[in-house]
Amino acid sequence: MRHAKRVFRSRSAKEGLPPGTLVHIGETRTAAPQVSLFEYGEWGVREQTFDTTDSRLPPHRADAVTWVDVEGVHQVETIRSLGECHNLHPLVLEDIVSTVQRPKVEDYDDYLFVVVRMLLPLEQGDFAAEQVSMVLGKGYLFTFQEGIRGDAFEAVRERIRTAKGKIRGMGADYLAYTLLDAIIDRYFTVLEGFGERLTTIEEDVALHPQPRVLVQLNELKKEAIYLRKAVWPLREVLSFLERDDTDLISDTTRIYLRDVHDHTVQAIDTVETYRDLLAGMLDLYLSSLSNRTNEIMKFLTVIGTIFMPLTFIVGLYGMNFRHMPELEWPYGYYLVLLIMALLSLAMVVYFRRRRWL
Amino acid sequence: MRHAKRVFRSRSAKEGLPPGTLVHIGETRTAAPQVSLFEYGEWGVREQTFDTTDSRLPPHRADAVTWVDVEGVHQVETIRSLGECHNLHPLVLEDIVSTVQRPKVEDYDDYLFVVVRMLLPLEQGDFAAEQVSMVLGKGYLFTFQEGIRGDAFEAVRERIRTAKGKIRGMGADYLAYTLLDAIIDRYFTVLEGFGERLTTIEEDVALHPQPRVLVQLNELKKEAIYLRKAVWPLREVLSFLERDDTDLISDTTRIYLRDVHDHTVQAIDTVETYRDLLAGMLDLYLSSLSNRTNEIMKFLTVIGTIFMPLTFIVGLYGMNFRHMPELEWPYGYYLVLLIMALLSLAMVVYFRRRRWL
Amino acid sequence: MRHAKRVFRSRSAKEGLPPGTLVHIGETRTAAPQVSLFEYGEWGVREQTFDTTDSRLPPHRADAVTWVDVEGVHQVETIRSLGECHNLHPLVLEDIVSTVQRPKVEDYDDYLFVVVRMLLPLEQGDFAAEQVSMVLGKGYLFTFQEGIRGDAFEAVRERIRTAKGKIRGMGADYLAYTLLDAIIDRYFTVLEGFGERLTTIEEDVALHPQPRVLVQLNELKKEAIYLRKAVWPLREVLSFLERDDTDLISDTTRIYLRDVHDHTVQAIDTVETYRDLLAGMLDLYLSSLSNRTNEIMKFLTVIGTIFMPLTFIVGLYGMNFRHMPELEWPYGYYLVLLIMALLSLAMVVYFRRRRWL
Amino acid sequence: MRHAKRVFRSRSAKEGLPPGTLVHIGETRTAAPQVSLFEYGEWGVREQTFDTTDSRLPPHRADAVTWVDVEGVHQVETIRSLGECHNLHPLVLEDIVSTVQRPKVEDYDDYLFVVVRMLLPLEQGDFAAEQVSMVLGKGYLFTFQEGIRGDAFEAVRERIRTAKGKIRGMGADYLAYTLLDAIIDRYFTVLEGFGERLTTIEEDVALHPQPRVLVQLNELKKEAIYLRKAVWPLREVLSFLERDDTDLISDTTRIYLRDVHDHTVQAIDTVETYRDLLAGMLDLYLSSLSNRTNEIMKFLTVIGTIFMPLTFIVGLYGMNFRHMPELEWPYGYYLVLLIMALLSLAMVVYFRRRRWL
Amino acid sequence: MRHAKRVFRSRSAKEGLPPGTLVHIGETRTAAPQVSLFEYGEWGVREQTFDTTDSRLPPHRADAVTWVDVEGVHQVETIRSLGECHNLHPLVLEDIVSTVQRPKVEDYDDYLFVVVRMLLPLEQGDFAAEQVSMVLGKGYLFTFQEGIRGDAFEAVRERIRTAKGKIRGMGADYLAYTLLDAIIDRYFTVLEGFGERLTTIEEDVALHPQPRVLVQLNELKKEAIYLRKAVWPLREVLSFLERDDTDLISDTTRIYLRDVHDHTVQAIDTVETYRDLLAGMLDLYLSSLSNRTNEIMKFLTVIGTIFMPLTFIVGLYGMNFRHMPELEWPYGYYLVLLIMALLSLAMVVYFRRRRWL
Repeated sequence: MRHAKRVFRSRSAKEGLPPGTLVHIGETRTAAPQVSLFEYGEWGVREQTFDTTDSRLPPHRADAVTWVDVEGVHQVETIRSLGECHNLHPLVLEDIVSTVQRPKVEDYDDYLFVVVRMLLPLEQGDFAAEQVSMVLGKGYLFTFQEGIRGDAFEAVRERIRTAKGKIRGMGADYLAYTLLDAIIDRYFTVLEGFGERLTTIEEDVALHPQPRVLVQLNELKKEAIYLRKAVWPLREVLSFLERDDTDLISDTTRIYLRDVHDHTVQAIDTVETYRDLLAGMLDLYLSSLSNRTNEIMKFLTVIGTIFMPLTFIVGLYGMNFRHMPELEWPYGYYLVLLIMALLSLAMVVYFRRRRWL
Repeated sequence: MRHAKRVFRSRSAKEGLPPGTLVHIGETRTAAPQVSLFEYGEWGVREQTFDTTDSRLPPHRADAVTWVDVEGVHQVETIRSLGECHNLHPLVLEDIVSTVQRPKVEDYDDYLFVVVRMLLPLEQGDFAAEQVSMVLGKGYLFTFQEGIRGDAFEAVRERIRTAKGKIRGMGADYLAYTLLDAIIDRYFTVLEGFGERLTTIEEDVALHPQPRVLVQLNELKKEAIYLRKAVWPLREVLSFLERDDTDLISDTTRIYLRDVHDHTVQAIDTVETYRDLLAGMLDLYLSSLSNRTNEIMKFLTVIGTIFMPLTFIVGLYGMNFRHMPELEWPYGYYLVLLIMALLSLAMVVYFRRRRWL
Repeated sequence: MRHAKRVFRSRSAKEGLPPGTLVHIGETRTAAPQVSLFEYGEWGVREQTFDTTDSRLPPHRADAVTWVDVEGVHQVETIRSLGECHNLHPLVLEDIVSTVQRPKVEDYDDYLFVVVRMLLPLEQGDFAAEQVSMVLGKGYLFTFQEGIRGDAFEAVRERIRTAKGKIRGMGADYLAYTLLDAIIDRYFTVLEGFGERLTTIEEDVALHPQPRVLVQLNELKKEAIYLRKAVWPLREVLSFLERDDTDLISDTTRIYLRDVHDHTVQAIDTVETYRDLLAGMLDLYLSSLSNRTNEIMKFLTVIGTIFMPLTFIVGLYGMNFRHMPELEWPYGYYLVLLIMALLSLAMVVYFRRRRWL
Repeated sequence: MRHAKRVFRSRSAKEGLPPGTLVHIGETRTAAPQVSLFEYGEWGVREQTFDTTDSRLPPHRADAVTWVDVEGVHQVETIRSLGECHNLHPLVLEDIVSTVQRPKVEDYDDYLFVVVRMLLPLEQGDFAAEQVSMVLGKGYLFTFQEGIRGDAFEAVRERIRTAKGKIRGMGADYLAYTLLDAIIDRYFTVLEGFGERLTTIEEDVALHPQPRVLVQLNELKKEAIYLRKAVWPLREVLSFLERDDTDLISDTTRIYLRDVHDHTVQAIDTVETYRDLLAGMLDLYLSSLSNRTNEIMKFLTVIGTIFMPLTFIVGLYGMNFRHMPELEWPYGYYLVLLIMALLSLAMVVYFRRRRWL
Repeated sequence: MRHAKRVFRSRSAKEGLPPGTLVHIGETRTAAPQVSLFEYGEWGVREQTFDTTDSRLPPHRADAVTWVDVEGVHQVETIRSLGECHNLHPLVLEDIVSTVQRPKVEDYDDYLFVVVRMLLPLEQGDFAAEQVSMVLGKGYLFTFQEGIRGDAFEAVRERIRTAKGKIRGMGADYLAYTLLDAIIDRYFTVLEGFGERLTTIEEDVALHPQPRVLVQLNELKKEAIYLRKAVWPLREVLSFLERDDTDLISDTTRIYLRDVHDHTVQAIDTVETYRDLLAGMLDLYLSSLSNRTNEIMKFLTVIGTIFMPLTFIVGLYGMNFRHMPELEWPYGYYLVLLIMALLSLAMVVYFRRRRWL
């Protein structure tokens, strides 16, 4: 994850502007924004795609659920015109285009406004995060995505088209649930990728505690912080949806939302477990390092302890005193060699006993 | 515990499927699922075993408690047909076959749905964990186990068969309590095994701080994280059962559930104590390691400090200057030997005083 | 404290047994259980002692407080017959004989069941812990102790006998308060002993960071964990007694219980302070150790840095080149000695400046 | 940030004085205090500036919002006379001039008293903090700033003057919201600057773990503590404003305040993330350092291990024994050279294998 | 602070005594206890001092506030007779003479009983702590101090005497507030002293990480623990006074108590900040130490790496082989000197590049 970039996504562009001023903050989708419209009910489904929203949306059918999905929030005009058409509060529009929101849910009486982060798995356990905003009203659902790397909703669209599952017989709240469920499912995919990277690195930590491993650990730690920031507030969002007494959500759907709530708690559990494991791995790294320093020190000490006395002895008989009787002995040299061999042997035995060798 | 495998048990197989789709997640029991049926009351007991559930379950007797125990949840068809027979919510069935649930309790008005983890002690303090789901209704209890390594319920079955204790005179809620109690009892067996491994390793930590010990510590730490994840949510489950005002649980049984709640709190206490002890042991390990590095350094320093001056002295008299009067002295050699002996002695005394020797 | 034994006191003996089965868990008192009976009121006091409970307890006098104190809970028959006589719930009896309970209070309408741990100071700041269970009913109080090392109640008994204080004029609830107060008072004695050991060790930590000290620190840490486990739940117990609306406790007594509650909070405070101090001492230990390693390294470096150049110089003039003019100089030897002396001096000055000497 | 100065800003000047005594605590603005007055409504705007407050403020117009902004709170007389004119509580005045208040909100029935800290970004990611106190009444808002480095309100003033946004049509509560929003916006600017410094230092931590970096890390850590102290209580302030049932704040404004509340939570999130990152960086620093010590040790050990045996060998053949046959061999010298070369080679190979080279 | 003494102030003297037995615990004031009496109202003030309380206190005037201040609580008889005169609960008297109470407030219907710790700044940033107990009734206030080092109330007495502020027109609750305010003000004086010591030591930590500094750090840490224990429960006390519905405290005074509550929260904030800073300083200390070990290691390695090869070379040409052609070369010696000079130079350059020099 390009984590650093995310955390520091500049908000300062907005300083000093009146509230409700629409300023896009975040990455920019290269393609033009695209609006797709689903209308469905027991009677069937109608699907339409627009490039801009100048073309007015068709009027709402009473017997249908209307799902307007906007991909790309960087053209504030698109958002503004859509928002004005449907009487959305200026602060809602402001939050939609500023893609650095904390996941949250807000009750505007006529509609609920939900912001969550969608995680998109990339290759090698990496992942990206995009903001998804939802406006859930009576019979309609608006979703706003950054739309840079695709979304997690394709399976849901397919289910609407093919009438698989019971989605066509349910209301807009059930659609919102289905989308949230799809988003949370992606969290698990991302978390599994993360877990695999963790397992990969763990072996290195214990056996090859190299600086490179430390950098990777630090990288994983930062990503875990990011995941945590994304998933914790989600719990509050789902508690609110599951428990609150807004009549925008039916009791049937609430049971399903309880299930998503449950998944969120599991995701949090997993993130926290990863954090614990990472903390343990850092301890392991430091301990392994200390162990290695220890080994190296032992090695040096053993070498030094064996050779310093020997070097002393050969130096001793290298002295030039006139009167050194040992030097004259016929077997003096061999005796000294023997003594040194025995000394070395004694030391090796000693170090073996102390388990330094 | 094959912890890593557990944590990462893939959920991604379910991505994109409509809610309520049954997908088995987890280890697979090799044998076919087996359904056993107990019907009992003051009048006696009737026990039956089926291999599949095609054979319809007999109709429910009003004066009996019916306990249907399903071992093996990997054949989703078995679960589906059973669930449809008894009007279980699709999400309940989904959770039963996905054996990565967090312990929880859900109230579906007609029945309570409880998921817990059953710990099964293996040899050498190791343990396995399997998911047990319970559906507690008026007069009946369904239990669903993974059924890979046996269960903790044999004693309960025996008690029903032999009418030991007062189980035959009580309702399905009391049966549910008895099973939960049996599950928690196993937790203590597992925790005792864990505690013994801790005691075993503790001595090594202080006396032989080797890399192997560190790896074992890390292993224990990961298992403690797992135990914690299993046992903490259990507390909420039991609080709910003990306190909530569902009429599926009688006041008499509530008193017993309070006892299980109590045991759960004790188990949590024990896990937390183990975590504290483990943290203490890691500190101890690092400190012991530092101590040893210290010892090694001292040793090297003592050796170096004794031999470097001596080597210098013998080198001094190995110089080839023409005019070195000491070399001519008749007792020069012995004098130097004496000086060196005294010097060594002085140093040994010095190091003794500094407690380095 | 024989902490480890406590933590791991086997509960597994009870696995598979029906609830309410009495199995003694814990240390065993060597003497036979002893039951002592106090009956007192404004009119005076009557005291009796039984060896077993076969002899029926005398009927309860309306104008008296009856205190039955059982020392020794290892003979489950004694407990069972007593319990059945007075209609105690099987779970209460089970908890009484299983001396590994967490401190708790339970309301059984007719009586309150309280379990606490009694700390008994041993010599040298050590301590033991025994379980005390209380059953407080209208006009009577049963207490059950392990009875291995005596108890903290002797002063209370004396007060009843001599009518000191106002105990004879008060109810059974006041007696329960008095006993709880006596138990908490012992906590402070134990905590003071613990504190003294802490003070003793603290000096060693800073000045003589030896492995032995580390082991002692670890021992204290484990005991602090144990104390914490004993004293924290006590707070809940006393909150319950002080606040709950059971009519077994009079308002007058509640004021006194508030005082005990207060003492408990103080005890918790003290335990937490000790934990903080212990954590600080471990940090201090590690820092002292690093400091010492540092000192040793400096010493070695100073020695090495002084002697390596000198050894090089004497080696230089030990070379056997035919043409080495210095060797022929009449004062060559003295010159070299002078140079080496100056060099050593310069280095000593240098290390002084760097504060390494 | 001159953090230390802030934390220790002396409060002791006030010791012993009766409550409500006005004593200025904090930095002193060099210029005289300046009072500016805005009156605005649908009808337009009137702006006035005073140097002192001797000149009475004009009477309040019923159809206008009156905003009195006082820059410089070091002349207590100004504050006192203003306060007495408008019946402000002495404790309110005391808090206004004592610029070490913790952010808070207090309900005085007729008015709300709000204290927050305004962060002002300086160059190089540094920042200053000043206290802003607000008194929000029916139709009027008083703001009191230290006024040393300018404020964050210029854009708001401009909006009032030019009737940009809907500010002119709203009440004093909306003005208060707008100012709070402007203050929080500055937090993000400061936090972004902080984040950039963090990123800058992070690379140094991993690659060049020098003492200087450590000092910078420590500096950042202290600033993070300061930011945390400023931003956490803000959350309570906004919760209070958003939720409380005072009729000084309209429902329309509450929705806007919810938005600011949201921003505050985001700011807290960011600060906490920075703290996590900083903690991670300190770990990284220490690990990098250990890594480097390790590298150095290896280097020394390799050098020592290669040269100590060689030095021993050359010393061996420097001995002066009369009978040393090797010395007489015609190719003895070359043989020894060869042996030493092979020995060195073997060691280099050995160290390569152990990855020490 | 003589912290250790405080923490371990023996409570065991009280073990086994009936509740309400007065036993003085704590330091003993050398002078006899002194009782001073203030009676004041709109009409004026009357001040009296007694040495003992045998002389009965004058009857309470209806139009006056009576403040009885007892300095010295070591003579339990004084306290007992005073307490009996005014119907104070035995537990209140017990707490007054036992000066190891945790700050708390208790409601005895007729009066409130408040215990707080008064911090008294000593020289050099040090401080002492004494217990102040207050009994606040309708129209009267009793205060009990240890009275060993004076108190914080002199300014209040002066204000009563001179009718400064509005104290003479207010009730006993306002007096209690004034005294609490005076006590909290002293906390800030003590905290500022503490902060200055922190600043002083911080520089040493980074630049001269010596054992002495570590001991000082540890000392500060223990004092911070003590401060924390004194100030945290104060918050609860003031919350209770500010919010509770006792009619002993008027609404006017409640607003003032809110202010003291606020100051307490600030004091807590400051203590927590100090704890954070201290934790940071310990990290800094350890890192600095590691840095220095690193430096020393580098130095040793550089010296060793330069001289070991040189020593080898000179040893080489000190060998006594008969056939060593180099020895015969006329410029052999100079050549070797040159080679060694180049070698040293190369190494210096190498170490420069690696930044070890």
